[in-house]
Amino acid sequence: MKVARVVGQVVGSVKHPQMEGWRLLVVRPEELGGLSGGEETIAIDRIGARQGERVLVVDDGAAARLLFGSAGPIRTVIVGVVDAAELG
Amino acid sequence: MKVARVVGQVVGSVKHPQMEGWRLLVVRPEELGGLSGGEETIAIDRIGARQGERVLVVDDGAAARLLFGSAGPIRTVIVGVVDAAELG
Amino acid sequence: MKVARVVGQVVGSVKHPQMEGWRLLVVRPEELGGLSGGEETIAIDRIGARQGERVLVVDDGAAARLLFGSAGPIRTVIVGVVDAAELG
Amino acid sequence: MKVARVVGQVVGSVKHPQMEGWRLLVVRPEELGGLSGGEETIAIDRIGARQGERVLVVDDGAAARLLFGSAGPIRTVIVGVVDAAELG
Amino acid sequence: MKVARVVGQVVGSVKHPQMEGWRLLVVRPEELGGLSGGEETIAIDRIGARQGERVLVVDDGAAARLLFGSAGPIRTVIVGVVDAAELG
Repeated sequence: MKVARVVGQVVGSVKHPQMEGWRLLVVRPEELGGLSGGEETIAIDRIGARQGERVLVVDDGAAARLLFGSAGPIRTVIVGVVDAAELG
Repeated sequence: MKVARVVGQVVGSVKHPQMEGWRLLVVRPEELGGLSGGEETIAIDRIGARQGERVLVVDDGAAARLLFGSAGPIRTVIVGVVDAAELG
Repeated sequence: MKVARVVGQVVGSVKHPQMEGWRLLVVRPEELGGLSGGEETIAIDRIGARQGERVLVVDDGAAARLLFGSAGPIRTVIVGVVDAAELG
Repeated sequence: MKVARVVGQVVGSVKHPQMEGWRLLVVRPEELGGLSGGEETIAIDRIGARQGERVLVVDDGAAARLLFGSAGPIRTVIVGVVDAAELG
Repeated sequence: MKVARVVGQVVGSVKHPQMEGWRLLVVRPEELGGLSGGEETIAIDRIGARQGERVLVVDDGAAARLLFGSAGPIRTVIVGVVDAAELG
């Protein structure tokens, strides 16, 4: 799991019937202190995350399919909102 | 999932009967703003992606096998075309 | 598996019923000699790890779900405390 | 999937009955233009790849076990020979 | 799979009944020529690998659980000793 910042949104056509209407957000992993924690990735949002918000992202295909009850080609999911990520 | 640019094509012989005739495209992950977002990889295309197009790529073997109904040795798949990947 | 140092904690809302009350710790992989061994990640703690402690982290979704008997969207878990990680 | 160059061979004893006699090749991922595309890895060869040849490598444990009909500890497999990997 | 050098050992308590008594070794991936091939990781040893020895490491949770007949939280395993890893 990673803490990541929502930095944008992807608009496009994903040709899989189970993925119609899903929001695809661009998230940037972020370490404590705000440093980058890895490469940007695209995550499926179903919690209503907002632009600039810090979220918790799980990158696991089987987890994603269990969560959505879907057999679709998915892997990276926003599973929560981060209120604080703090030292100690 | 990643946003990636189609930059080329691989021609070769994959010795698995279920993979005959599949298009294998070279895709380069791309972050918002156009920076590189990771290493080039080879993705299976079945949506008819064009050279230079931005696509959405899922890198998950089980997802790939579910999508194609195949038990073949596959992992990285182009699942959609990106119309826009934008800040905010 | 990685040796990692507990450097913080994430407080937030994870919208999955099976994850209520779980502690989410920020861990930083650490090589022998104390050098960084990769990017910070968020791990689920159920062994009661303390701030600053060195722990053993497994990053595998199926392993996490087996360990917790959960179908939740989880992947990275603290599975032990490291007493020593030594050369030779 | 990656395009990779065969750069060597590993000789050793793998203590798993299902892996007797398998060729283990050292492969170096290669991007279009010949740049390195990641770290060297060891791949199982059953297509008879030759030293210096460009091959297609799939890095997915479940895919490898399906391909070989094996429950062995395998993950990275050479699945094809690359005749050309070209821009456009 | 990776060729890696055994550089140390982890002593600690892993709170999973199926993992009692397992040796956890620190391994450092190594490319042909001896360059580093990635980050240190912790691998389960059941072949009796010695300090300084070159080994073959598989990093796949499902493979690890099949190999040990275990449902434990494991992923990285030493599966063989490398006698030679050579160019050509």
